[in-house]
Amino acid sequence: MPMDDVVSQMRKFMEPKSVAIMGLSRTPFTIGKTALDILAELRACGYQGKIYPVHPQATELQGIKTYASVADAPADIDLAIINLPRELVPGIVKECIDKGIEAIAILTQGFTDANDEKGDQLQKQIDDIIRGSKARILGPNSIGTANAYANISLGFLKTQMEEVPVSWITQSGLFFLGPLGLKPFGKGIDLGNACDIHFADALEYFEQDDETKVIALHIEGMRDTKKFLRTVARVAHKKPVVAFKTGRSEQASHAVLSHTGSLTGRDELWDVAFRQAGVIRVNDIEELIDTVRAFYILPLMKGKRVGIVSWSGGANIMAIDACQSSGLEIAKVSQSTIDRLRTLYPSWQDVRNPADIWPAVMIAKKASLFEVEKIVLETLLDDAGVDAVLCMLGAFISGLEVEFTKIVTQAAESHPGKPFVFHPYAGGFYSEFKDELEKTNKTMVFSSPQRALRALKHLSDYAKLSAYPDT
Amino acid sequence: MPMDDVVSQMRKFMEPKSVAIMGLSRTPFTIGKTALDILAELRACGYQGKIYPVHPQATELQGIKTYASVADAPADIDLAIINLPRELVPGIVKECIDKGIEAIAILTQGFTDANDEKGDQLQKQIDDIIRGSKARILGPNSIGTANAYANISLGFLKTQMEEVPVSWITQSGLFFLGPLGLKPFGKGIDLGNACDIHFADALEYFEQDDETKVIALHIEGMRDTKKFLRTVARVAHKKPVVAFKTGRSEQASHAVLSHTGSLTGRDELWDVAFRQAGVIRVNDIEELIDTVRAFYILPLMKGKRVGIVSWSGGANIMAIDACQSSGLEIAKVSQSTIDRLRTLYPSWQDVRNPADIWPAVMIAKKASLFEVEKIVLETLLDDAGVDAVLCMLGAFISGLEVEFTKIVTQAAESHPGKPFVFHPYAGGFYSEFKDELEKTNKTMVFSSPQRALRALKHLSDYAKLSAYPDT
Repeated sequence: MPMDDVVSQMRKFMEPKSVAIMGLSRTPFTIGKTALDILAELRACGYQGKIYPVHPQATELQGIKTYASVADAPADIDLAIINLPRELVPGIVKECIDKGIEAIAILTQGFTDANDEKGDQLQKQIDDIIRGSKARILGPNSIGTANAYANISLGFLKTQMEEVPVSWITQSGLFFLGPLGLKPFGKGIDLGNACDIHFADALEYFEQDDETKVIALHIEGMRDTKKFLRTVARVAHKKPVVAFKTGRSEQASHAVLSHTGSLTGRDELWDVAFRQAGVIRVNDIEELIDTVRAFYILPLMKGKRVGIVSWSGGANIMAIDACQSSGLEIAKVSQSTIDRLRTLYPSWQDVRNPADIWPAVMIAKKASLFEVEKIVLETLLDDAGVDAVLCMLGAFISGLEVEFTKIVTQAAESHPGKPFVFHPYAGGFYSEFKDELEKTNKTMVFSSPQRALRALKHLSDYAKLSAYPDT
Repeated sequence: MPMDDVVSQMRKFMEPKSVAIMGLSRTPFTIGKTALDILAELRACGYQGKIYPVHPQATELQGIKTYASVADAPADIDLAIINLPRELVPGIVKECIDKGIEAIAILTQGFTDANDEKGDQLQKQIDDIIRGSKARILGPNSIGTANAYANISLGFLKTQMEEVPVSWITQSGLFFLGPLGLKPFGKGIDLGNACDIHFADALEYFEQDDETKVIALHIEGMRDTKKFLRTVARVAHKKPVVAFKTGRSEQASHAVLSHTGSLTGRDELWDVAFRQAGVIRVNDIEELIDTVRAFYILPLMKGKRVGIVSWSGGANIMAIDACQSSGLEIAKVSQSTIDRLRTLYPSWQDVRNPADIWPAVMIAKKASLFEVEKIVLETLLDDAGVDAVLCMLGAFISGLEVEFTKIVTQAAESHPGKPFVFHPYAGGFYSEFKDELEKTNKTMVFSSPQRALRALKHLSDYAKLSAYPDT
């Protein structure tokens, strides 16, 4: 199918102008005071399109006029959302197609993910119904799509989204809920069982989408691996694609069959395939989030050479270990860097990278802590042999983060092409540090040197893919 | 030296009844409004012993009477703390010994950690001075000791301590400042360059100490590895010893020489030695803190078989991957467990471990979300084939943590011998969850399934060391 067609089909899922909802309850499921309900969520996220709730008995739900069937609703329906018991789904899909609806999202579980024959039969009925029609199906067993730019979220759970150029293609609604530390969620599509709409379709949409700069994938398994790999290899050379492939073991494969009915494939093959396609593979949810954020916030890292500065010699040694394990290198700094640092240090101290500046801080008679930090940070960033800088310091006093934010802002303005990141090794005021420094959108704060350097390594690897715009 | 002697020597460092301080400034070094000053910190932490500040010019500092020299101070000095320029240190050590002081902590840097000959010479002078005396030296380049049970903290930085039975032996002051997530810091000793007091001395002290239940080591390197390994193998069979050995690479070894003047040793040899000694080795600062906390908070894990319950099939698959990578096993649950779970599930759903309970929650007509969660958690904990349980759920609604705390408290009372841990996979109310659930002191909350299972694996490994008391 021509890519333009796929993109226009995907638009109906990602930017629908009108939605029909089938499967609303007159008494929504609630946890505490929160209703887990598609209509409530759609309105809460500020959706401006038309909403046509369908309910055989009701005349209105949550103050909105309902229709007895989708046939009775107005004709201009971009997208139908189905969250009915599984036995009813094929019949409703048929009604939607008869109505001329071309985008259908099925949230219901119990199809190829079920442990019985009935699930497979129902899926086959759906396949038969859509064959030959223009309709495309998202799911079943999907939580829908979300798009902060279009104020739309189709699931029954609160999506943690904001207008950032980071787009997610997943096989679990989990990511829509905002895992710890996941701030950038701009657009998302949950493929669920992926009976029709696949990774390749979603990738083509985000490839063309100007509001998407980074693409994150959560993959459990798939059937058409070839088409996926062909597509992702093309897209990954235009925009960074970060992939979290789960379901690695034999045991996990069984669980994946029960979850999304997908085939996991041999894990070593995925490793090779991702590498060949230029996809950045990550191994756990923390690395996924760190990496996606790094691509969103930081510039790429042009080489592998890291400059390190810390108040703690002990932290520097941890960072050297982390450099080695992540595959980065400790930069050999220039003579001019050494000469500049020497003016700050006590005479007995070795001047090297990593820079241990606490002795310099302790003897600084005129210079303050912040002046020493600023000079050392700028000196390392100025060095042509340094591709990125990691700063580690103690967040043990409230207010430090304010001074550091000034230093960060200045350094970023004078060194826009080099990433620099922070690890505050004392936790007393870690959150204040993180919040304040990251507000600048110039740096990232990590909870360990390992995590910081792992993220930088991905920026360095991706910089080698030449097609990526150099910013 | 007999162990009792070592313990009584160490007491003077860890529980001194009186301290003399040499190297206080009349204008303390400050960051913002915080004075980084030994006297200020000692008073701030509520020290109840006698303090004798020594200053050649002052008559009082911070309202406390000073002495022109240590010779002029009263005779009952348990511990001398020296933070003077390095050239003055040997002379002051001599004065301390002449005064009969048997415990001397040197905070000054620039001895074997320095890049010049002078540093080595000064160290040799100190070695010569203490030879034949009863005096023991902590440091140089140490941040001292801290002991929440004795309200003492000798460093010039605020120590994050509280009365918990977790003791730290480190080669960096970093750990005294409370790295992110480090709550249990009860007692600590920073060996610095370890010219005299070594890991073995501190281990013997904590071995005998009833207030110590878990020992954490941060090791960069050492000279007398044999003595250390002999001692730690004995101690590790009585109390869990968790070791974070840094300085793994060639490059790191150089940095260690500049930091604490220690020899790192080949990393593979450390791996073997730790395993033989029964020491739990960890690989980064997050694993260190997770593991120490797990030993402090959770019971040991009797086997390797994990029960998993989640609202998210996707999270379950991540947990299976993490189980495999950490070396644990997915428990094969009993028929009675399967029968109990089946009553909650939709008919089409496969009943297995991991348990994906969201479909059960969605069809629960009478049972609430919390009832389903409680039944499944208790069912897994009841199963004799399950050694620990991991629960994953979405922290996307405020207030959930209160209900879960009730479930946790009840489950802990009825299953005191099995660890169970949580991963809230939505970050919206993660901190509330963590704070509330961990208040019970019965469970731990982790930011990823990987981190949760890695910590459980250490509990499982240590349970095999038979001498450890069984709770």
